[in-house]
Amino acid sequence: MSEPKVFEKPLGMRDFLPDMAERKRFLELRIQRVMEQWGYREIITPTLEFYDTVGAASATLTNRMFKLLDREGHTLVLRPDMTAPIARVAASLTDAPYPLRFLYHASVYRAQEQEAGRNAEFYQTGVELLGEASPGADAEVMALALSCLQEAGVKGYKLALGHVGLLDGLLEENVDDPRLRAELKEDLLRRDYVAFRQRLEQSALSCGQQERLLALLHVYRGEEGLSALSRLVGGPRSQEALVNLQEIWELLNGYGVSQDVILDLTLIGFLNYYTGAVFEGFAEGYGFPVLSGGRYDHLLRRFGTDAPATGFALKVDRLLEVSQIQPEQPERVVVAYRPGQIRQAIARAQALRRAQPPKAVEMIALPDGWEAERRAAFVARQKRRGVDEVVFLEGEGLT
Amino acid sequence: MSEPKVFEKPLGMRDFLPDMAERKRFLELRIQRVMEQWGYREIITPTLEFYDTVGAASATLTNRMFKLLDREGHTLVLRPDMTAPIARVAASLTDAPYPLRFLYHASVYRAQEQEAGRNAEFYQTGVELLGEASPGADAEVMALALSCLQEAGVKGYKLALGHVGLLDGLLEENVDDPRLRAELKEDLLRRDYVAFRQRLEQSALSCGQQERLLALLHVYRGEEGLSALSRLVGGPRSQEALVNLQEIWELLNGYGVSQDVILDLTLIGFLNYYTGAVFEGFAEGYGFPVLSGGRYDHLLRRFGTDAPATGFALKVDRLLEVSQIQPEQPERVVVAYRPGQIRQAIARAQALRRAQPPKAVEMIALPDGWEAERRAAFVARQKRRGVDEVVFLEGEGLT
Repeated sequence: MSEPKVFEKPLGMRDFLPDMAERKRFLELRIQRVMEQWGYREIITPTLEFYDTVGAASATLTNRMFKLLDREGHTLVLRPDMTAPIARVAASLTDAPYPLRFLYHASVYRAQEQEAGRNAEFYQTGVELLGEASPGADAEVMALALSCLQEAGVKGYKLALGHVGLLDGLLEENVDDPRLRAELKEDLLRRDYVAFRQRLEQSALSCGQQERLLALLHVYRGEEGLSALSRLVGGPRSQEALVNLQEIWELLNGYGVSQDVILDLTLIGFLNYYTGAVFEGFAEGYGFPVLSGGRYDHLLRRFGTDAPATGFALKVDRLLEVSQIQPEQPERVVVAYRPGQIRQAIARAQALRRAQPPKAVEMIALPDGWEAERRAAFVARQKRRGVDEVVFLEGEGLT
Repeated sequence: MSEPKVFEKPLGMRDFLPDMAERKRFLELRIQRVMEQWGYREIITPTLEFYDTVGAASATLTNRMFKLLDREGHTLVLRPDMTAPIARVAASLTDAPYPLRFLYHASVYRAQEQEAGRNAEFYQTGVELLGEASPGADAEVMALALSCLQEAGVKGYKLALGHVGLLDGLLEENVDDPRLRAELKEDLLRRDYVAFRQRLEQSALSCGQQERLLALLHVYRGEEGLSALSRLVGGPRSQEALVNLQEIWELLNGYGVSQDVILDLTLIGFLNYYTGAVFEGFAEGYGFPVLSGGRYDHLLRRFGTDAPATGFALKVDRLLEVSQIQPEQPERVVVAYRPGQIRQAIARAQALRRAQPPKAVEMIALPDGWEAERRAAFVARQKRRGVDEVVFLEGEGLT
């Protein structure tokens, strides 16, 4: 174990300097405005939660959580997600009428391995819609997710839609051996489609069964996709899930967004609390989902309330990589002054701050012995910093 | 040790429900706009820092920090303040030209005793001005602090201004015994003025010395206050500090804010890293400071860079208690629909979301067997939730 150096941050921890921090806030606020237009309202929950309640209800592996002991000997965790804390809050609001619509901006935390080089603190912006089991709720959060991606300036965004019930149903209906079923699902979770295919070929399943399961690997589009899927289902569980998907699809049509949704049945339970329709958002040419969400109808039970729920979280770190829009910035002005001119500099800076629209005004003292010949170099340096205009005062007389 | 109940949060941890969360964001953004007009730019630092670097540089007592071990065996802390992390960042920016102006919004963390009932996670919004030692920098952050209090709708705000050098100088010049000096300073830190007075009376100090030290307890105003203070100083340290205060005062006049500033020399080193002018902001009729700040010229040395600095943090939790302004909210509309009307409801909701100005629109499904007679009760319940208008669809025909 080596001593940390003075500049160092713990593994997976990052600083955001102004250009990035301002883009992050700009995107978060744009997205928040959309969420508010859909009736969602912000809530804030604490960074630390009890391991035994929120930690245990979370989908994050225990050994990936940051844990600490409080003075009473309880194990605390840095929240690994926001869904479980919001379920805790919702379950405690015994007299609030459902549906509840919440939005949040929050850091979530995952301890990382030395080798991985991954982030340990993630920024998420998301919504939860609690107390509504209908396909209308699923369609609402998906249509809202698409609106958020549009508002965030994501080019070529798409939503991939799956269904835990449809996948589990098809596996149950076609595979009797529970171990093989678990292995096939594990292959899909790891997105190892080669292993999935090989496992099917080496199994004793009939050709028809193998074909129906291989069909899971296809990506389907639109009404056509739904009718192709209808030829695969063969039991009540998958049938019910398909009807649910069809109803959601029809409402996505109502929102005018179904052209941005593809059907991908391999999308399942990447978090173990999902129970129905699940989805991920993608940007063109970017390999990772920029948002994920779905229905989790059993989570609130863990907090003593039985209520259905759905929601999604935007992964703000990834959004910053794919967003094509830049914050609107005020004009940046530097008022440069010699020490004796500070009172005039203050007056000038204050006037510029009160201008319409107001400018962002920094005051910078010029060094002793400053000579006007250095002005061009000074201005060039300020422009490199993103300053739009430099105001010098010396023409106005010295005090 | 008892098991935590499912609803419970760790000691000192809080949820902010929408009314409060929205006020918090509204105030933070208003304040941020002012800070940006003064040339400050947002930065974000991680929640976790190394104890050996940022933790040790912080003014928070070690036993008040939340500590945990990472996988390499390093002790990490949940940041106890934002000044030390920003000093770490500034020290690492070796090619950025001073002065640097940063703003932040962040949670900071202090472990609490079971009995205390105090918060363990605090919300702060603040600025740091790094690389500028002149009185102009002190006056700038103080004038900005006052602008922020005004913008946050704080009634009867005042800034109390003290000076570490003036207090330490007067103690050194009047008290030879270092133990007595430390005890007197400790009395002031604890704001136990009775003990301070008694300790002076019981000391062997001369009447003149006692009088000069008792004068520390007065609150001074304006130019008059400064000349009263000039009669107390008797050595180079206090003299230098007084000149510094006078220069700052003159610039506060330049900003037109000196009428909002009082001189209070008992304001010192409530954080042990302050080295010069220190200040606290107050609201009328509220007993706790709503902001605190000051000059800390030695902190960056701990991160390998020697640069002067000053700044302040607004205590957002307290600001929420004293702010007299409310967020501007969009009009809130509920579109209520029977299950068969959902496509019309979606169309209506989307049209209202696209109105100018956009409305905040929730869709609520009416229960099966809904009867129009229940309408008044439904509307009343929505109004109690803060909804401005309820739109029913049944006149538009059922699908």
